[in-house]
Amino acid sequence: MVSSILVLGAGRSSSSLISYLEEESQKFNWSVTVGDVSFAAARSLAVGNDKAIQFDIRDVENSRKAIRSADVVISMIPAHLHVQVAALCLQEKKHLLTASYVSDEMKSFDDQAREKNLLFLNECGLDPGIDHMSAMKMIDIIKEEGGVLHSFESFTGGLIAPETDRENPWRYKFTWNPRNVVMAGQGTSKFLQEGQYKYIPYQQLFKRFTPISIPEYGEYEGYANRDSLKYIETYGLHGIQTMLRGTLRFNGFCAAWDIFVQLGCTDDSYAMEGVGRMTHRDFIDTFLDRNSGKSLEEKLLRQFHLQPDGPEMQRLTWSGFFEKEKIGLPQGTPAQILEHILNKKWNLHPDDKDLVVMWHRFVYEKKGKEKEIQSTLVARGENRVHTAMAKTVGFPLAIAAKLLLQGKIKERGVVIPTMKEIYQPVLQELKSLGIELREREVVAN
Amino acid sequence: MVSSILVLGAGRSSSSLISYLEEESQKFNWSVTVGDVSFAAARSLAVGNDKAIQFDIRDVENSRKAIRSADVVISMIPAHLHVQVAALCLQEKKHLLTASYVSDEMKSFDDQAREKNLLFLNECGLDPGIDHMSAMKMIDIIKEEGGVLHSFESFTGGLIAPETDRENPWRYKFTWNPRNVVMAGQGTSKFLQEGQYKYIPYQQLFKRFTPISIPEYGEYEGYANRDSLKYIETYGLHGIQTMLRGTLRFNGFCAAWDIFVQLGCTDDSYAMEGVGRMTHRDFIDTFLDRNSGKSLEEKLLRQFHLQPDGPEMQRLTWSGFFEKEKIGLPQGTPAQILEHILNKKWNLHPDDKDLVVMWHRFVYEKKGKEKEIQSTLVARGENRVHTAMAKTVGFPLAIAAKLLLQGKIKERGVVIPTMKEIYQPVLQELKSLGIELREREVVAN
Repeated sequence: MVSSILVLGAGRSSSSLISYLEEESQKFNWSVTVGDVSFAAARSLAVGNDKAIQFDIRDVENSRKAIRSADVVISMIPAHLHVQVAALCLQEKKHLLTASYVSDEMKSFDDQAREKNLLFLNECGLDPGIDHMSAMKMIDIIKEEGGVLHSFESFTGGLIAPETDRENPWRYKFTWNPRNVVMAGQGTSKFLQEGQYKYIPYQQLFKRFTPISIPEYGEYEGYANRDSLKYIETYGLHGIQTMLRGTLRFNGFCAAWDIFVQLGCTDDSYAMEGVGRMTHRDFIDTFLDRNSGKSLEEKLLRQFHLQPDGPEMQRLTWSGFFEKEKIGLPQGTPAQILEHILNKKWNLHPDDKDLVVMWHRFVYEKKGKEKEIQSTLVARGENRVHTAMAKTVGFPLAIAAKLLLQGKIKERGVVIPTMKEIYQPVLQELKSLGIELREREVVAN
Repeated sequence: MVSSILVLGAGRSSSSLISYLEEESQKFNWSVTVGDVSFAAARSLAVGNDKAIQFDIRDVENSRKAIRSADVVISMIPAHLHVQVAALCLQEKKHLLTASYVSDEMKSFDDQAREKNLLFLNECGLDPGIDHMSAMKMIDIIKEEGGVLHSFESFTGGLIAPETDRENPWRYKFTWNPRNVVMAGQGTSKFLQEGQYKYIPYQQLFKRFTPISIPEYGEYEGYANRDSLKYIETYGLHGIQTMLRGTLRFNGFCAAWDIFVQLGCTDDSYAMEGVGRMTHRDFIDTFLDRNSGKSLEEKLLRQFHLQPDGPEMQRLTWSGFFEKEKIGLPQGTPAQILEHILNKKWNLHPDDKDLVVMWHRFVYEKKGKEKEIQSTLVARGENRVHTAMAKTVGFPLAIAAKLLLQGKIKERGVVIPTMKEIYQPVLQELKSLGIELREREVVAN
């Protein structure tokens, strides 16, 4: 019987996933179907013998039909919709793979998925995904060698390559869902630092970054990412002193992004008034104290204690926020408008190459001595479609789907890829695709 | 037939409401019933012939019975529960009065309430309440005299009297629901300033206050309150240039409170770890960057650019945040813990007197000339039970209930007290109770 894979969502992160599946499908005689709300989007990513369909999870009966004819479903649609896909997968008895964080609702399907002998594998992309797998590989090695891990820190970022877009002071462009970039960090970040629980609210997040220096790759900033605490249990690290997962950006990004956060430009909770008539300048001015200065620039400088030619103003200027250009949207929330303005300059050009950087630091004790290992992954994109982001998010899912169809994954229920059965073969094949973490021992001075 | 009034909720703001109703009930032969989740709380506020009952809105059938036997229901329970009360009032065909903001759900009952000839009067306490009524009175006068209002600003605060608790640097204590004080300002504040829409996110709110000087009463700070924009329509002020409603605090309050906001101490979205073992110092330390200093004090000073003996540190010190005292809660969100610590010093003492201050400024044009009127209300509490807060929140509701039972309010549906039929008799009776706004014309220099 021909095995059938259904890929839902033909966005920025699906290209390499689909290409890989198509290539493998010829070897293994699989059929691959690509579904998206936009049939055109599905069509544009479907290659070779792939089938493209229109797929809208709000249309339950057609969604059910599409899922029924698959063996494995890979969902790349927005994370909050995975629960509806999962419910159908349960009813139709299909495996489900995603690159998204496990929500409480997803977690609640665990028992039923086990009962029905189904794998609901989540957090199997880049971050979350390769970070879990590469971390668990080192953690298992350290344990097997009798070491005790005291500290784990991990930062990942989707950036742009040094040779790309050289005048862009942010050193950043949209390589994944722009909405998620704009909303990143909302809520409270939780982690453990030298035995102390730490909580960083959104309003402090981009002020409280960690400087990270990666040999050969330069200086970065890492800000804490969501709830690191829950991975203490997931990784089996009871008693660890420091546990911190975060997001990596080039130097200077956080201070400039913090201006948007402080102004309220990333708020998605209300529709602004008069958007149709608004210019980029008006948008920023709306969030500033009318009495704090004469010009928009003066107000910003005063309110945030900035230098006129400082790095924050340089980034805002480059992004066009001081232009009298119309925004070009009829309506929107602050977050939607911010995304729209940023996208005018942060949209990938055909010759842009992106760069994914992942960095872990493990500090552990072995035979009474403290040791430190740092692991680094650097992946470079080919072009605006086959980005490093698309490859590092898509390949782990594709490989996991293959292993599952080959009967090589016995795990069932709602899980993330922390078990050797999954991470070992996935990391091994990623290596053959040029995606690899390099470890080096750091000797204390 | 004896008219029957049911008061739900026997919290801090219900005392004067219930006393007033009891006094009037003897004149008008009403029966008054006080219901609360805690029967003891209901019992303690029920006076004279009042009946006390246990009332829990989660127990739908007993709630229905209690509501069925009333003619008018006055709901003082937490605002998010009003919708459930309203649904029962609709089914049982009873009028409903509250001092809370009209939620979208409450608004959606408008048609049904009208159809059933019911009044669902909301925002009929102090703020919202007396502020609406006193504003509409002036707005109607200005209009009737041919004036055109350009600017309306209104600030109200529940403070403590100058002679009370003189060493308390905050000049503030809990005189209404402490939880609402701790959570105040979350979300985005929206207003109109000189023709420009303005939005202030929570993280800027306590930095962006307006200095307000009230003759004879000193210097205050006003921070913007929720959505002022929606009252442009409600007040009939289409074309107005400035529309701002806000909250009043004594000088220095906002900068100190902002420390809590910035740290994340007012976050109610997650339960903290290890609360049982935590001291006041630990609580604050949890939100600070571990690497920013040696002591808790040093970290705070550095992170927020404070002076060791400055007004912010003085307030935090007075409130005991640097004490090694156990918090005394087994668990809690940051907001719950903050409330608990603050309450150790901000709980009203028997001899404390509170102070309610309301201030409006109207700028309008009449016969080609710009004019300005400021109105001020100052009300002083009698003691810790019959506070100025309880009187100014409760009396308007009680008076409205009386007018309704007397057939003097014809208005029906979900409304707020902006119509003359309601505000005129309510303000008139409030005046006889010593609660009155005094207007003065301000002549430009």
